[in-house]
Amino acid sequence: MADTVGKVRLSHSPIPDSFTPRNGVTITCKAAVAWEAGKELSLEDIEVLPPRAHEVRIQIYYTGVCHTDAYTLSGKDPEGAFPIVLGHEGAGIVESVGEGVTNVKPGDHVVALYTPECKECKFCKSGKTNLCGKIRATQGKGVMPDGTSRFRCKGQDLLHFMGTSTFSQYTVVADISVVAVQPDAPMDRTCLLGCGITTGYGAARITANCEEGSNVAIFGAGCVGLSVVQGAVMQKAGKIIVVDVNPTKEEWAKKFGATDFVNPTKLEGQTIVEKLIEMTDGGCDYTFDCTGNVGVMRAALEACHKGWGQSIVIGVAAAGQEISTRPFQLVTGRVWKGCAFGGVKGRSQMEGLVSDYLNGKLKVDEFITHREPLANINTAFEQMKAGDCIRCVVTMKE
Amino acid sequence: MADTVGKVRLSHSPIPDSFTPRNGVTITCKAAVAWEAGKELSLEDIEVLPPRAHEVRIQIYYTGVCHTDAYTLSGKDPEGAFPIVLGHEGAGIVESVGEGVTNVKPGDHVVALYTPECKECKFCKSGKTNLCGKIRATQGKGVMPDGTSRFRCKGQDLLHFMGTSTFSQYTVVADISVVAVQPDAPMDRTCLLGCGITTGYGAARITANCEEGSNVAIFGAGCVGLSVVQGAVMQKAGKIIVVDVNPTKEEWAKKFGATDFVNPTKLEGQTIVEKLIEMTDGGCDYTFDCTGNVGVMRAALEACHKGWGQSIVIGVAAAGQEISTRPFQLVTGRVWKGCAFGGVKGRSQMEGLVSDYLNGKLKVDEFITHREPLANINTAFEQMKAGDCIRCVVTMKE
Repeated sequence: MADTVGKVRLSHSPIPDSFTPRNGVTITCKAAVAWEAGKELSLEDIEVLPPRAHEVRIQIYYTGVCHTDAYTLSGKDPEGAFPIVLGHEGAGIVESVGEGVTNVKPGDHVVALYTPECKECKFCKSGKTNLCGKIRATQGKGVMPDGTSRFRCKGQDLLHFMGTSTFSQYTVVADISVVAVQPDAPMDRTCLLGCGITTGYGAARITANCEEGSNVAIFGAGCVGLSVVQGAVMQKAGKIIVVDVNPTKEEWAKKFGATDFVNPTKLEGQTIVEKLIEMTDGGCDYTFDCTGNVGVMRAALEACHKGWGQSIVIGVAAAGQEISTRPFQLVTGRVWKGCAFGGVKGRSQMEGLVSDYLNGKLKVDEFITHREPLANINTAFEQMKAGDCIRCVVTMKE
Repeated sequence: MADTVGKVRLSHSPIPDSFTPRNGVTITCKAAVAWEAGKELSLEDIEVLPPRAHEVRIQIYYTGVCHTDAYTLSGKDPEGAFPIVLGHEGAGIVESVGEGVTNVKPGDHVVALYTPECKECKFCKSGKTNLCGKIRATQGKGVMPDGTSRFRCKGQDLLHFMGTSTFSQYTVVADISVVAVQPDAPMDRTCLLGCGITTGYGAARITANCEEGSNVAIFGAGCVGLSVVQGAVMQKAGKIIVVDVNPTKEEWAKKFGATDFVNPTKLEGQTIVEKLIEMTDGGCDYTFDCTGNVGVMRAALEACHKGWGQSIVIGVAAAGQEISTRPFQLVTGRVWKGCAFGGVKGRSQMEGLVSDYLNGKLKVDEFITHREPLANINTAFEQMKAGDCIRCVVTMKE
C-alpha cells in the first residue's frame, strides 16, 4: 500500500486505545451537531444513552464525510429534519450492546450500515435486493426502532441520521445496522466502506455484474465513480471509460484502472452519447451515473448499446428532479435501473470487501486525500466541494 | 377450441388452394396501397417482382391489422413514407425463392417476421436480444436489403413496410424475415403470431420471465395485453391484474386468465399506483404497458415493488413523447425495460409458439373478433378503433 496518496500521509493500521465498556451508563462525548439547515456544524458535548434491546453503542474512531451529509445539511433534502447528528461512513468499536444482540459484542471492530440487513423481512429474504424493510420507517424519521432518540444535548433530543449518526464519538444503532469486520483492517480505511467505495464497487460487481470484456462508462470520477472503475476492473471489463468535466480526474481515473477518459466539455461537434457510441462500436454494455445530475442520467442511458445495454443510476438527484427519455430507448432493449449501497448486503458481504482490501484487490487508502480532526469537521465539508478532494477522513478521538 | 368467439364463426384449419410457383416471373395481384398519409388504403393491381438472392416471395393468405399499420397510415409516424404496402401480421405459403435461400422452400407454410433473425450478426450472437441488426437500415427505409423495391404500381415503385408488407396477395421478404411453421396450423390463426400475440406472450415469458407466484399487472387489454395475461398464466404467476378503462374488457381479461380487473377511472380517492400497491402488498413484481401512453408507462413503473419490481414497456408511444419518473424509483430497485416482438427470436422460437397453439396452451382463435376480405380492408381499420374488436383477420384470396 502506498504511504502517501494525494496530500496526506497515511498512518498504517492505527491501533485504538483500549476502551472501557460502560454498560447501562449514559456517555457524554463530543459530537458535531447540525442545529439547523444551512448552518455550519457545531461541536458539542452530547449525551449518548445506553443501547436498548437489539441496539448497539459504538465508539466511532473514524468517519468519512459524504455528499449526502452536505445535501441534508444544506436544507435541500425535503426529508431532512433538525437538530440532528449527521454522518454515515463510520468505523469503530462496539462499546456495549443491549438485550438480545447476538451479531456483535463489545470489543468488535465494526462498520456502521446505513442500509441494514435483518435477514428476516420480505426484502432480505427475496434474494433480489439489499434493501431491508425492517426499520425503514423509523430510520427515515430519524429515530431508533422504538421511536425515540439516544442523543440529548442542551436539554433536547437530537435526531439520528440514516440509522448511523457517525459524527459523534459514540453512537447507538440498531443491531441490524452494524457489522463486525476483521480487527486487523485499519478503521481509518474501513470507515470508507460504509458508503462511497462499497456503493461503486457493488454497483459494478453486484447490480450490473458486468461480464468479462464488456464495455463500461462511468459518469463522475468521485469516490463512487472511481470505485465503479475498481469493480469493473475486477469483473475484467473491456473498455472502462470515465467521463468527467474536471480534467484533473483523468489521472485519478487511470490510476484506478480506467482505459479511457472523456471530458464532455472538450468534444467538438459530438455529444457525449455519440462519442461513447463511437468508442464502443454501438454503445456501452453498462453505464453508471455517479453524478446525481438527471441530464447525465439520460445521457448514460442513451449511450447504452441497443438490445442489452444497462444503465445504473447511483447518484442521488436533487428533490423534485426527474429523469426522462423516449420510451423507444427501452423498447429497443436498453435497461434503466439503479441501486443503493451498490446492492451490497452489509452484514453478509462486508467481510468480503474488507478481505478484498486486505488482499490488495480493493484500493481504499488511495481515496483518502484529506484528514481532519473532529474539531475541524466544517473544514472537511469545505474540502469535499473542491475538485482535488476525493475523501476526507475525520478522526473522532481527541 | 371454441367455434365462435365474439361475433365471428371460425373456419377450422382452412386448407389453401393449390398454388403454382412462378419462378422468375413478375406476378400481378391485388394489394391495398397506402398512397399518402391520412387517406384510406386503395385496392390496386400491383406488380410483385421475383425474389432476388436471399429473398423469398410469399403468397399471403391471411393478414392481421394492427395499430402500428394505422399509426403509419395516419402520418403521425415521422419515419413513415409513401406510397407503401403496409401490413406486418401475415401468414402464407412460399411461392418461390431467390438464389441462396436455404431456410424455406416453395410450398412451406410461413409466418412473416418484421423482426428478422440472421443468426450471424452481433445482436443475434449476443444471446441477449432478439433484435437483429443485419437488414435494419434498409428495412427502416422501406426497401429490400439491396436498396430496391419489389413492388410496382402505376409506373412507380411502392415501399415495403417493416420488411413484410402483408397487405398484398404476394410479397417479397428477406430470407431472414420468414419462418416455416407446421402446415397443420391454420394460417388464419398463425398470421396473428406475426405480431400482437407473440409480443405479449413473449414479454411475459422471455423478457420478464415472471417467476411462479409473482404478482403481475397489465395495462391495456388489447391483443398484446391479453397475450401478456396468457404468458403470465403459463409462468404460473400469482395475481394477474388487468388494468383498462374499458369496462367490457373485464370479461375478456378473465377469459384469458386474469385474476383481477381494475378500471382506473372508477377508483375513488386512490390512484391506480396506490391501488395496485395495496392489492399486491407493496407493489407488483412485473408490470407491462400495452397502451403506448407515456403517462401509463410511468404508472406501470411506479406500481412496481421496491427492490425488484420490473416494468416492461411494450406499447409504442407517439412520436416525440417521453417517459419520466423520479430517479429515486430506480435507486430503490425498480427496473425499467422494454421489448419488441416480445423478445422472441422469430426463426428459432416461432415453431414453439405454434406448438403451444396446436396443443391448446396458447389461445389464438379467441382473439379473432372480426373478419373481412381484402376488398374491405378499410373497414378492418375502422373496426380496430372500436372497443369490441381485438383482431380483425383479413382474407387475401378473392
